[in-house]
Amino acid sequence: MAPLALTMGEPAGIGPDLILQLFADRQSLGLPVFAVYGHAGFLAARAERLGLNIDIEAIAPEDATETFQRALPVIDIVGDVDDTPGDPDPNTAPVVVGAIAQAVEAVQTGLFRGVVTAPIHKAALYGAGFEYPGHTEFLAALCADDDAVPLPVMMLVHDDLRTVPLTIHIPLAAVPEQITHELILDTIRVIARDLSARFGIAKPRIGVAGLNPHAGEDGMIGSEEVDTIIPALAALRREGIDVFGPLSADTLFYPPHWRNYDCVVAMYHDQALIPIKTVAFDAGVNVTLGLPIVRTSPDHGTAFSLAGTGRLPLTPCWRRSVWRTRFHESDRWFTSAS
Amino acid sequence: MAPLALTMGEPAGIGPDLILQLFADRQSLGLPVFAVYGHAGFLAARAERLGLNIDIEAIAPEDATETFQRALPVIDIVGDVDDTPGDPDPNTAPVVVGAIAQAVEAVQTGLFRGVVTAPIHKAALYGAGFEYPGHTEFLAALCADDDAVPLPVMMLVHDDLRTVPLTIHIPLAAVPEQITHELILDTIRVIARDLSARFGIAKPRIGVAGLNPHAGEDGMIGSEEVDTIIPALAALRREGIDVFGPLSADTLFYPPHWRNYDCVVAMYHDQALIPIKTVAFDAGVNVTLGLPIVRTSPDHGTAFSLAGTGRLPLTPCWRRSVWRTRFHESDRWFTSAS
Repeated sequence: MAPLALTMGEPAGIGPDLILQLFADRQSLGLPVFAVYGHAGFLAARAERLGLNIDIEAIAPEDATETFQRALPVIDIVGDVDDTPGDPDPNTAPVVVGAIAQAVEAVQTGLFRGVVTAPIHKAALYGAGFEYPGHTEFLAALCADDDAVPLPVMMLVHDDLRTVPLTIHIPLAAVPEQITHELILDTIRVIARDLSARFGIAKPRIGVAGLNPHAGEDGMIGSEEVDTIIPALAALRREGIDVFGPLSADTLFYPPHWRNYDCVVAMYHDQALIPIKTVAFDAGVNVTLGLPIVRTSPDHGTAFSLAGTGRLPLTPCWRRSVWRTRFHESDRWFTSAS
Repeated sequence: MAPLALTMGEPAGIGPDLILQLFADRQSLGLPVFAVYGHAGFLAARAERLGLNIDIEAIAPEDATETFQRALPVIDIVGDVDDTPGDPDPNTAPVVVGAIAQAVEAVQTGLFRGVVTAPIHKAALYGAGFEYPGHTEFLAALCADDDAVPLPVMMLVHDDLRTVPLTIHIPLAAVPEQITHELILDTIRVIARDLSARFGIAKPRIGVAGLNPHAGEDGMIGSEEVDTIIPALAALRREGIDVFGPLSADTLFYPPHWRNYDCVVAMYHDQALIPIKTVAFDAGVNVTLGLPIVRTSPDHGTAFSLAGTGRLPLTPCWRRSVWRTRFHESDRWFTSAS
């Protein structure tokens, strides 16, 4: 099986620390083979700072598997990266951005079977011409076929709970106007297609939360359910997609309720993130649907204050169960799809 | 100790069923003495329909304690109530409304130590001149001192998690404009005062969620934190109230985080209700702060489809733990206050 490609992410953050620690623990965690797209010299410096006794080897992508047993395989991206934990440096942007671009290309050619991305710090990239609202939109642009950019859909996964926020990092006041007929249809079509194609769920059942308290109580508390959500779900049903709702969001995430669905669609960030972080905190895996490649990422940020300190934002239990889940998620995804 | 007053709530709903079942189980559940403000004839008919072999006795409020061991004590409200489960009848409104009004009055005189209200069906009351947006506002009006109506504050309690939504049953689109400096100050003052006076927490720590994703990321995702919430919390701190925030709502309800606070204030309905219902579902107790009397209620509705069927929306475990908690909450509240 092809190895996984990891992108190094923001050098001043904890992404590199976690990748190095994962490699150090690869046997006890039973991790599949992976290589890092990043900067070999910087990773060696960070490993030394952390006191991790691991070898790092700059390789060609084809040599990842044979290298992995003896050294961390790194596909070296040209550029300068100093080891300045907690202090992001815009000069590292070409390496950070190049790592993502080359990893995606390598997955598309089949050299790797999926990409796991470490967190980036957008502010350090904007100065270097990075022009995307976020990591995921950049990945979608890299996957564009001619000028057709796929719609990336962020799904958070924790055990059997899968949830997609329809809108993400926008002000709450902007949410109602962003919940359009088209957005609901486009997003749920991607979810239905990828749950079948990638997760092996023949006929996925998709539960959809309302926007307003109690899903609007038939228009008594807000009109968006009646005006937009209910007609959109009816249109999806006519396409043969099993959608249910709009459902009252407050009771939807009670386990006996969400277990009725293969995926729960929320209308906005906190509606999806509060329940998953309440029960799973940082154990959730971020899976991007809608792309022609497999991409997962941890559901946490750069944690500048912890970078380079050796105090990883995770207990050993977290490392074992969560990063393992993360990789296994990719495995399962591929297994189901193949 | 004075008994508790229960209000019967909507006769076509499951409130009466639950009250009757509680009385039947009063010994095994170890419940404190209570009396019902409602309609004795109707309650007898519902008990017969449910096959519950209990005696029901119309009494004067003073006789609740001596009656409780042998029969369900009912303070009979004048009016007609037929037993039509699932089919609300506006003609019952005078009894439903009268029960609440008389129970509140009896608590204010000290005959009862608190009121536990069963759910009402507002639509059945509006025709009869009930003019309040909800149950709680009606209670506040009943407690008005001259024309000064107290600000009622809904707090949901489950074990040690206490959470208050700053806005409740309004459309999501209306939330940002409703989150005002005054609302934040008035609500959190009530919380701080009552957590001290009623719950015996000398110096309560109050955590406050942001409105926007990640609490707005310093104004990057919405301006309400910077414009309104942060200045309001600063003003509260100057009054000596220990408020913290605005905090990112998605991680705030992770148990190791909310346990830092005696109460968590959310900005809107689902922000508070999703986490509590995800972990506690219908085990949450609704406690009304801000009133001169103690009032709790179950956190569920009339459930018309279950009324009169004997299929209570609760397992025996729910009955034992939750209703018991509910009563014990009242106990603890009083114990702490006395």
